[in-house]
Amino acid sequence: MASTQNRSRRAFLERAALASAAFTAAPLRAQDAGNLPSNIPQWMKIQGEPVNWHPYGLPSEFEKRVVKFKRASVQPTEGVSLTPLQHLHGTITPSGLVFERQHGGVPNIDPAQHRLMLHGMVRRPLIWTMDDLLHFPSVSRVLFLECSGNTSRDWRSPVSKDVQQTHGLLSCCEWTGVPLATLLDEAGLQPDARWVLAEGGDASGHTRSLPVEKCLEDILVVYAQNGEMLRPEQGYPLRLIVPGWEGNVCVKWLRRLKVGDAPFHTRQETSRYTDLMPDGSARQFSFAMEAKSVITRPSGGHRVTYRGFHEISGLAWSGQGRIRRVDVSTDGGRNWREAALQEPVLHRALTRFRFAWNWDGSAALLQSRAMDETGYVQPTRAQMIALRGFNSRYHYNAIQSWGIAASGEVTHVQV
Amino acid sequence: MASTQNRSRRAFLERAALASAAFTAAPLRAQDAGNLPSNIPQWMKIQGEPVNWHPYGLPSEFEKRVVKFKRASVQPTEGVSLTPLQHLHGTITPSGLVFERQHGGVPNIDPAQHRLMLHGMVRRPLIWTMDDLLHFPSVSRVLFLECSGNTSRDWRSPVSKDVQQTHGLLSCCEWTGVPLATLLDEAGLQPDARWVLAEGGDASGHTRSLPVEKCLEDILVVYAQNGEMLRPEQGYPLRLIVPGWEGNVCVKWLRRLKVGDAPFHTRQETSRYTDLMPDGSARQFSFAMEAKSVITRPSGGHRVTYRGFHEISGLAWSGQGRIRRVDVSTDGGRNWREAALQEPVLHRALTRFRFAWNWDGSAALLQSRAMDETGYVQPTRAQMIALRGFNSRYHYNAIQSWGIAASGEVTHVQV
Repeated sequence: MASTQNRSRRAFLERAALASAAFTAAPLRAQDAGNLPSNIPQWMKIQGEPVNWHPYGLPSEFEKRVVKFKRASVQPTEGVSLTPLQHLHGTITPSGLVFERQHGGVPNIDPAQHRLMLHGMVRRPLIWTMDDLLHFPSVSRVLFLECSGNTSRDWRSPVSKDVQQTHGLLSCCEWTGVPLATLLDEAGLQPDARWVLAEGGDASGHTRSLPVEKCLEDILVVYAQNGEMLRPEQGYPLRLIVPGWEGNVCVKWLRRLKVGDAPFHTRQETSRYTDLMPDGSARQFSFAMEAKSVITRPSGGHRVTYRGFHEISGLAWSGQGRIRRVDVSTDGGRNWREAALQEPVLHRALTRFRFAWNWDGSAALLQSRAMDETGYVQPTRAQMIALRGFNSRYHYNAIQSWGIAASGEVTHVQV
Repeated sequence: MASTQNRSRRAFLERAALASAAFTAAPLRAQDAGNLPSNIPQWMKIQGEPVNWHPYGLPSEFEKRVVKFKRASVQPTEGVSLTPLQHLHGTITPSGLVFERQHGGVPNIDPAQHRLMLHGMVRRPLIWTMDDLLHFPSVSRVLFLECSGNTSRDWRSPVSKDVQQTHGLLSCCEWTGVPLATLLDEAGLQPDARWVLAEGGDASGHTRSLPVEKCLEDILVVYAQNGEMLRPEQGYPLRLIVPGWEGNVCVKWLRRLKVGDAPFHTRQETSRYTDLMPDGSARQFSFAMEAKSVITRPSGGHRVTYRGFHEISGLAWSGQGRIRRVDVSTDGGRNWREAALQEPVLHRALTRFRFAWNWDGSAALLQSRAMDETGYVQPTRAQMIALRGFNSRYHYNAIQSWGIAASGEVTHVQV
């Protein structure tokens, strides 16, 4: 939670927002209620739905548009579905809206049949049931999950209509599971152990190699998300969560860990998930997601309907640690002002930022720029392209722009 | 996140847990995998379900038992359904499993038709649409929600079989909305304003009076929970969240706020939600939920199936601030040891505690005892009854006991 100091700072920013809002003709919208009759709505005149109508509750029927969006793909079991960030609030992604990247569809696994094997360069190969793993010492952490291909379409042209299309391969949950270090300790690493292969139990047999240092540092073998057991499309009953690293190493339906003295160079880490650099070389094992941010409101597809106070709101995150600061520009990067960060700012979690803005009715260009605790600053698009060229598909983290027309229409633009 | 100091402390406790576990014959359960064939499960041999099979995802079919439980009631639209705490992990309650207390069923409200009116002792009565409110400066906070009647059945006899029955009127979400102070500022409080009536838009017209000091301090007018819009049974599209105070003042389907110079003494705050004291007097407006904790694993209905290492895990919370410390006893309160607290420990949120335990196969009596940052310590059952007698239905927060038989069976007992 916020320290007293941070609370004071946030209160100041909120008061500042209101003060600047009150300066306009239509500060915060409301109707005068003085002469309105006390209308009793129809839904107060009848008994509502019974208690526990849905023993597992569902969203309102009026929220039916808030769903994941599947990109077109050759095979129905291969491809992505994206999180509707433009409709979300706060920092937690509801489990039903966490993005998907599937290589062979979603297996339907009976947890009583599921096993996790740990073998290779260990003193004692071991195999666990889910019940075994649920008895280990556990930890819970709120962590973001981002596909390395998130925003990859932004590399070339502004083809996306909304933030779900540009940044929707991004989610954040409270994950609970067992530190991978605990499992490796149980089996006992051999002295030359350097890499760990993780294999998923889906039809693609998705595999990635992970350096043993990271395995011992903070990787989690996770069985729960947002309080309940993992969702099927998120790896039920077991997956890796690799804090701050690209989503594809967070192997789902985890069934096997093999310890070796070198990376395993499996198909999924050679045919893809490498970065082709401007000189034609390929960068392999580029795991960490660098600092990044995006404004989610207003964003593409929204319309700014009135002049006066608006709260610009968005998300910032870094695989390298906590977000230290987010700046917002409404004039395409000429002027920047610091946004307020929602406390608590957690390590490698999504951070919500908010910024008070008075729209004067003229065209505007909204941008956000994240800085993390290492001092790294999110690059401009020009800096990104200067460094990486146009060959890559992964790890694009440039500053994002939303254009606001005099009509109030918000569109994705690139500057 | 944990400070370095806290991380070290947690790491120490975790190592201590593992060390003590390794001391037993069967420390952490696993099978030797050395001679096992590499079985390929059936679900790896076929393509899984397609990407975005459910555009709004759902739990695995193997988790069907993890649902809210409705208590028997005279009217189907009146009563409670309880959160299955025995199946949950971490601190966030998934929105589909947040407990319910309904007085007139769940209205099906079209947000485009919903209005919030603020009138009474204000300079300028106002009425807002949902779209208006979504444009206000917003905040997000993780906060517990507990019905004042939670654990009320424990007052007399151990009739409950599991922690869902004893403590299931308890949940914790990330809530997003507008500080009530902002709305009151917009309308302008008159000098004699002291209390605010909140009215819900359900068939019961549920109403509660709240002191204006709390309204200005931290009450939120909330439209989102766990990232998405409120669920219908949680007040969609608008409710109050009153940090640390009893659930029934967190008025759902919020439609009207009326400011006055005294409490309104409506039916819902005189016919119920008062505390009958041993001397026959009734304590009114006892809003804050005192510090409390409960072990959720193992808990009633679980069975401890083997001797050796077990992680005792539970939840602690206080309406008065952060949890400072939780102690656990395995011998019915004769000896206590400090549990590890999952960081970050947030203000007025659920805190997960964990405690390493080696079960030697003999009968045991598990208890947890919370202390909050004010220094308040959760009372024993005897202290609770000495203070409050047996007349009350609300605000029971005594230490809870789970008995473990030599057979491993876990039952609810009272000591």
